[in-house]
Amino acid sequence: MANLIRFGVSLEQKLLQGFDSLLKEKKYSNRSEAIRDLIRESLVKQEWLVGKDVAGAITLVYDHHKRDLVNKILDIQHDFGNLIISLQHIHIDHNNCLELLAVKGAPQKVQNLSDTLRSVKGVRHCALSMSTTGRDLV
Amino acid sequence: MANLIRFGVSLEQKLLQGFDSLLKEKKYSNRSEAIRDLIRESLVKQEWLVGKDVAGAITLVYDHHKRDLVNKILDIQHDFGNLIISLQHIHIDHNNCLELLAVKGAPQKVQNLSDTLRSVKGVRHCALSMSTTGRDLV
Amino acid sequence: MANLIRFGVSLEQKLLQGFDSLLKEKKYSNRSEAIRDLIRESLVKQEWLVGKDVAGAITLVYDHHKRDLVNKILDIQHDFGNLIISLQHIHIDHNNCLELLAVKGAPQKVQNLSDTLRSVKGVRHCALSMSTTGRDLV
Amino acid sequence: MANLIRFGVSLEQKLLQGFDSLLKEKKYSNRSEAIRDLIRESLVKQEWLVGKDVAGAITLVYDHHKRDLVNKILDIQHDFGNLIISLQHIHIDHNNCLELLAVKGAPQKVQNLSDTLRSVKGVRHCALSMSTTGRDLV
Repeated sequence: MANLIRFGVSLEQKLLQGFDSLLKEKKYSNRSEAIRDLIRESLVKQEWLVGKDVAGAITLVYDHHKRDLVNKILDIQHDFGNLIISLQHIHIDHNNCLELLAVKGAPQKVQNLSDTLRSVKGVRHCALSMSTTGRDLV
Repeated sequence: MANLIRFGVSLEQKLLQGFDSLLKEKKYSNRSEAIRDLIRESLVKQEWLVGKDVAGAITLVYDHHKRDLVNKILDIQHDFGNLIISLQHIHIDHNNCLELLAVKGAPQKVQNLSDTLRSVKGVRHCALSMSTTGRDLV
Repeated sequence: MANLIRFGVSLEQKLLQGFDSLLKEKKYSNRSEAIRDLIRESLVKQEWLVGKDVAGAITLVYDHHKRDLVNKILDIQHDFGNLIISLQHIHIDHNNCLELLAVKGAPQKVQNLSDTLRSVKGVRHCALSMSTTGRDLV
Repeated sequence: MANLIRFGVSLEQKLLQGFDSLLKEKKYSNRSEAIRDLIRESLVKQEWLVGKDVAGAITLVYDHHKRDLVNKILDIQHDFGNLIISLQHIHIDHNNCLELLAVKGAPQKVQNLSDTLRSVKGVRHCALSMSTTGRDLV
């Protein structure tokens, strides 16, 4: 089990009331968990800034009828193979595919892979979701 | 094939030079493709704002040793089952799991699912990546 | 003086260490102040979402040599006069002006003013900075 | 006058329709101006990334009754004096001040000034709006 440390926080009453009602809306069961999430969010941002190994998802939307496109995406994925852990392919409708790539590596390389995929003609949308390996987060 | 329309754009020379060097860096092979991407990016933002059906990815990082957590996440995923298309689970290291959920539905419901998962004690990070079904994008 | 309330927060040791080193980097003198800021940031985001009266800054960069542009910007500023509290004009260099508008009002109206200014031909950049009236923040 | 260059862009019909209706909503009078803005937005993001001299606004909200706070903010502003071009102070209500600082300099220094101001106890909100000197934008 993780080693829990307890410490006190001072908050203005009005600020605390606002926070408590936000917690309710966001489904948190207690303040510690919500504060933990705010802290973790800052730390993950920092991981991406300072260049630690990160994890995340690249979301692609494209038309699978364009055969060249599919091949090109496969080529790129192989070029950056060490960054891509696994891949999930969803048939959204007759034309559109949604592809989710689980990625891990140096932030700049992951960004570079995302840029390269986005620039391919026929890719309708490409989004990079910045998450974490969790190693330093607990 | 999609119906291509060609139109003229006027740009100040210096601005065009800046754009061209950005394109090179971002791996675009031509201006039209880069401009298409900028336009699609604005349209996807708008889809999320106006409440059209959207698609995207929810990225979760958590410790699978906490059995209760795994069960809770499964429960939530079943509660929101109609939003989740498929799921990909990656063993990042001995402790950490990276889970990618492909989601589709109304923006507010997707956001709500993401909030609910983030608030679970033990989830170390939860990121929502806003993409598109591609239906109105071409 | 504001009414301070003190409560306990439990944090995993490793998470707390990461937070403490982030605080040092971000110049915080104690944890309570940093946590207050994280909380306030979430509350300000919420104010913009739910449509409470907000405050903020609109930053404009434009070339003052284009007389028509200056007149157009003035016209717009008068049309939205009730939103603009005051204005600061800086001569960045021979050509470029930086203009800071202090704004207050409903989020959608403020966004609308910002969109209208951005769309004026000759405005080189327009950024909306979302802040708060501070009324409900303490 | 700036040197205008005209070039052709190919867009799928459906994408162009979506773009045109977004333009109407965002008050643009023509496509070139909207495309210019999308391009400028990407270039400004890049300026902040690569460390060119940038301009922007820092928005502060604080309670002026706390005399120490006012002095501390003044001290900081003098420490970073070369970054701050000018300052605008607005009395939002009996307690709250909105202060807009026009800033110019290296991105990291501007970010550092913003972090330092945010961390002061009593500052209720601090937002950094990333804009540009306009020098390389036209």
